[in-house]
Amino acid sequence: MSESFGRLVGVGVGPGDPEMLTLKGLRALEEAAVVFVPVGDAGEVGRAEAVVRAHVDEGKVRRLVFALSADEAAVVRNHREAARIVADALRGGADCAFATIGDPNVYSTFTYLARRVRSEVPEVEIRTVPGITAMQDLASRSGTALVEGAERLVLLPFIGEAGLLRDALFSGETVVCYKGGGRMPEVARIAKEAGRFEGAVYGARLGSEGERIGFLGEVEGTLPYLSTVIFNGKAREFDG
Amino acid sequence: MSESFGRLVGVGVGPGDPEMLTLKGLRALEEAAVVFVPVGDAGEVGRAEAVVRAHVDEGKVRRLVFALSADEAAVVRNHREAARIVADALRGGADCAFATIGDPNVYSTFTYLARRVRSEVPEVEIRTVPGITAMQDLASRSGTALVEGAERLVLLPFIGEAGLLRDALFSGETVVCYKGGGRMPEVARIAKEAGRFEGAVYGARLGSEGERIGFLGEVEGTLPYLSTVIFNGKAREFDG
Repeated sequence: MSESFGRLVGVGVGPGDPEMLTLKGLRALEEAAVVFVPVGDAGEVGRAEAVVRAHVDEGKVRRLVFALSADEAAVVRNHREAARIVADALRGGADCAFATIGDPNVYSTFTYLARRVRSEVPEVEIRTVPGITAMQDLASRSGTALVEGAERLVLLPFIGEAGLLRDALFSGETVVCYKGGGRMPEVARIAKEAGRFEGAVYGARLGSEGERIGFLGEVEGTLPYLSTVIFNGKAREFDG
Repeated sequence: MSESFGRLVGVGVGPGDPEMLTLKGLRALEEAAVVFVPVGDAGEVGRAEAVVRAHVDEGKVRRLVFALSADEAAVVRNHREAARIVADALRGGADCAFATIGDPNVYSTFTYLARRVRSEVPEVEIRTVPGITAMQDLASRSGTALVEGAERLVLLPFIGEAGLLRDALFSGETVVCYKGGGRMPEVARIAKEAGRFEGAVYGARLGSEGERIGFLGEVEGTLPYLSTVIFNGKAREFDG
């Protein structure tokens, strides 16, 4: 019975540079009959799609709306509708890929989508192909060694309460903060309190048009939601 | 003056599967005149080399000894000798790549090597190309979503004192433990104390000969130093 269904693969396409895709990810995109890409109203818009279009025929690319909205009900509707479209394609026997920026197992829309698709089509085979995360790309582009020896790394999104970032920064280890673009003055203030402001590296739209990379202290103006800050005290050691 | 030197790039080649290399990493290996690979006495032996040999002509591959020895003095001698060899090649004008398993900015030998090369040849241009980490590959192969929503991720090596792993596990977030292969009974005991043993996912030699993936509770026998354990309580959600 399940033999007749298509398979679903979540492909991490990296932060935006089409060359940051893995060979395995490229093959997954090539082998899929349909490649779904998320489109929305935030920084994620078009970045996964841009990477996909650099590699595969546009005729098999299909857009799915994933608004990064504050409206919870709208988000749930988006997810449900997207899952229904993907489930229909899988029931029709098409092998499907879903392209996601970064890695499909790290703060990815794919996790939600896959869970809903699974509830619609329990028999379907779902797998993922890892992708380079913004944290890794920013470390590389800024010449920053993230962790070495016995050091710990803490990765957290700056959503919800600010105390978690403060605790992590005071602990003294390498801290990577995602999604703080809309509240960067608050991130900067907490970093100063913890003595971690100097040397903190900021990045957004890595490998894409409008790329921004610099010290947190140099950052000004309106910033994308999908911003990354690395705190580790050894930033800019190499050329990036 | 610096125009006459070659450039050095640390290329993350992923955990072992030759397809886990990025397109950018592949290009860096192809463009380099010399591709250095670490060889040693532990699990790292030959894995970076195997990925490199799958992609480039073996005539430009050169081995550097990096014993993962307990003998500190031997390690320092290895690093110094390796840096001298790389620095000589750069002074001779050769563009050099150094292939490292995983990512060159995450617990990588490349960080040490680059620092020593920089001290020998201060003018040299050093950059890195990110690579898929074992954490990401194990998440994918085991069908595990690492983090979603507001969750935090803590990555730490199980070297030195055990208290850091215990603290991380008790905090309840996603914890990834590297390098615990030689002390897995201790890791398992701490995980049980913290109520995080069930569902913990173990992996080693990912994408290579002798690959091992399973629940921590299923693991037996002698394990490689480079072992990875993911604690997140939602393991095996997808097919991997």
